[in-house]
Amino acid sequence: MIAVDWGTTSLRVFRLDERGHVREQRRSARGILAAEGRFVAVLREEIGDWDDRLIVMAGMIGSRQGWFEMPYVDCPAGLDEIASALQRLPADEFADREIWIVPGLRSRNDSGAYDVMRGEETQICGVLAELASQPQTVCLPGTHSKLATVANGRVERFATAMTGELFELLCSHSVLGRLMQPGEHDADAFAQGVAHAARAGDLLHHLFAVRTLGLFDALQPTQLRPFLSGLLIGHELNDLPTSAGSVHLVGASTLLAAYKAALALRGHAVHEHSELASAHGCYALAKQAGLLTQK
Amino acid sequence: MIAVDWGTTSLRVFRLDERGHVREQRRSARGILAAEGRFVAVLREEIGDWDDRLIVMAGMIGSRQGWFEMPYVDCPAGLDEIASALQRLPADEFADREIWIVPGLRSRNDSGAYDVMRGEETQICGVLAELASQPQTVCLPGTHSKLATVANGRVERFATAMTGELFELLCSHSVLGRLMQPGEHDADAFAQGVAHAARAGDLLHHLFAVRTLGLFDALQPTQLRPFLSGLLIGHELNDLPTSAGSVHLVGASTLLAAYKAALALRGHAVHEHSELASAHGCYALAKQAGLLTQK
Repeated sequence: MIAVDWGTTSLRVFRLDERGHVREQRRSARGILAAEGRFVAVLREEIGDWDDRLIVMAGMIGSRQGWFEMPYVDCPAGLDEIASALQRLPADEFADREIWIVPGLRSRNDSGAYDVMRGEETQICGVLAELASQPQTVCLPGTHSKLATVANGRVERFATAMTGELFELLCSHSVLGRLMQPGEHDADAFAQGVAHAARAGDLLHHLFAVRTLGLFDALQPTQLRPFLSGLLIGHELNDLPTSAGSVHLVGASTLLAAYKAALALRGHAVHEHSELASAHGCYALAKQAGLLTQK
Repeated sequence: MIAVDWGTTSLRVFRLDERGHVREQRRSARGILAAEGRFVAVLREEIGDWDDRLIVMAGMIGSRQGWFEMPYVDCPAGLDEIASALQRLPADEFADREIWIVPGLRSRNDSGAYDVMRGEETQICGVLAELASQPQTVCLPGTHSKLATVANGRVERFATAMTGELFELLCSHSVLGRLMQPGEHDADAFAQGVAHAARAGDLLHHLFAVRTLGLFDALQPTQLRPFLSGLLIGHELNDLPTSAGSVHLVGASTLLAAYKAALALRGHAVHEHSELASAHGCYALAKQAGLLTQK
C-alpha cells in the first residue's frame, strides 16, 4: 500500500510492504498550498511508478482547503473510531486505485473551546502499539504543536499551541527579530529561554526579556533567536501536567531536537519514536478498517 | 515652557503656562522613525512660533535611536531621582533655547531580566500628585504596555508586556489574521476574549481558540479581531497582583477604552487620568529641577 502524509507545506509518500514496513519514501514541498488544487496531478507525479492499489492519505489534505473535506471525529478516539470514519475518495481520475482519507480529531479543551488536529492522529496511531495503557503524554512539535493524552489505545484529549508559528512571526516581523543576528545553535541561550519560561509572568511579559537581555548585554545578538525558541517551547510545556513524568516525542518536525532538549531540561524522560509514525499509522488504520485483506 | 512627548511613531508638543496648564498642543506622526535623524528641523517646524525658552522632551527621543542617548535611572525612582538626571542637550542650532531630556527608567523584574521605559515615567510623574502614598497600580497601554507599582511618590517597579505589538503581528501576518473580517467593534466578543484569558492554559494554547471558535461558528469572522484583542489584554492583566484593587489608567493610547473595559470585566475599579499626563510630567520635572525659576 501507499501512505500519504499531506500537510499544509509538505508532502510525504511512503510505500509499505504487506507487513507494514516502509520500503521506499519521498518527500516534497508540494503541500496543499503549493499544490494549488492540482491534487490528482501532484499525487500521480509523487507516487510515480508505484502501482499499489491502496492509497491512504492523512493530514490537511482532508481539510476544507484540501482535496476532500472530512468531518472531525470526537475524542476519545483510537484505531477503531478513526478507522470506522475513513472515507473512500470518489476519484474517477484514479479508477485503478482505491484512495482513502483519514479524518481529523476534535477535542473539547478545559477552556471550553475545541482543539483540532489533522495528520497528528495518524502519527499517534502509528505509535499506539508502543504506548502503555495508562495515561501517556504525547508531544507532536510543529507550526501548531499538539500535546495529547493517550490512554488505553485512545486519544483522550489534546491541546494545540501556536509555538512554531509565533516563533516565525516574531523572528520575521517584530522588534525582537530586528535585534537578532544569525549564528550557530547556542544550547546555553536556548536553556536560558526554557528556564525563563518557568518563572512567574505571562508570555507577553517574558517576550520583552529578549529585548532587554540584549540591551544590557546579557545575551549577544546571535543568542536572541535560540533564547526565544527556548522561551516559547518552555511556555508550551508549562501546560504539561506536572504529573506527566515521561513524554513521547512523535513526528518528523525539524523541531524534535529542540523539544527533546527542552523536555530534558524540565526533568522529563523522553521517549523518541520513529519519524515514520505517519506511514505506520496509515497502515494500522488500513488494517483496522479491513482494507488490507481486499485484493 | 514647551513639553515634548517624542515616541517611536508619534510626536506631541504642548505649550504650558507658568502654572503648568496646557494652552496649546499639536500632534504629528513624525516619531523618531519618521523624523529620520532630522530632529532639529522637525522640532523647529512643530513648535512653530512658540517662543518659550525652556523645552523638556521625554520618550524614545532619549534612546540610542533618538537625538541623544540618556542612561536609565534605576527604580525605585520618583520626581527627585528623575529630575536630578535630566540632561541639557548641547544643541547649537537652538542657541536661543534651553532643551532638556528626561531619562528613562529601569526595573529589575521577578524573572531576573530588566524592564525599561522611556516616556511612561514622565506620564507617571504627571499624575503622581493624584496618587495615594500606599502602593498603587498604574497601567500604561501601548505597543509595549507597562504595568507599574507606585508608592510614596516613586515608581517601585514595572513590567512590560508586548501586547500591542503581538496583536498587530497576529492580525497582519498569522493564520489567525487571514480568518478575520473587518467589522464594528464587538463588545461581546471582546469580553469573551478577556474571560478566555483567565482560564487555565498558556497564551500559546489560547491563541488557537481564535481559529477553532471561528471554525465551529462560535464566533463570526468579524468577531475574531475583538476576541483576540480581549484575549491578549486579558493575558497581560493576568500579571496584575490579585490584591490590586483599583488601577490607574494613564496615557493617550487609542487602547485606553479597551483596557478600561477589560479592567472592569476583571473586577477592578478604574481611575482614568488626563491624556495630558505627559505634558504635566514634563512640567513637574522642570519644576523639581528648578528650571522654571530661571528667567
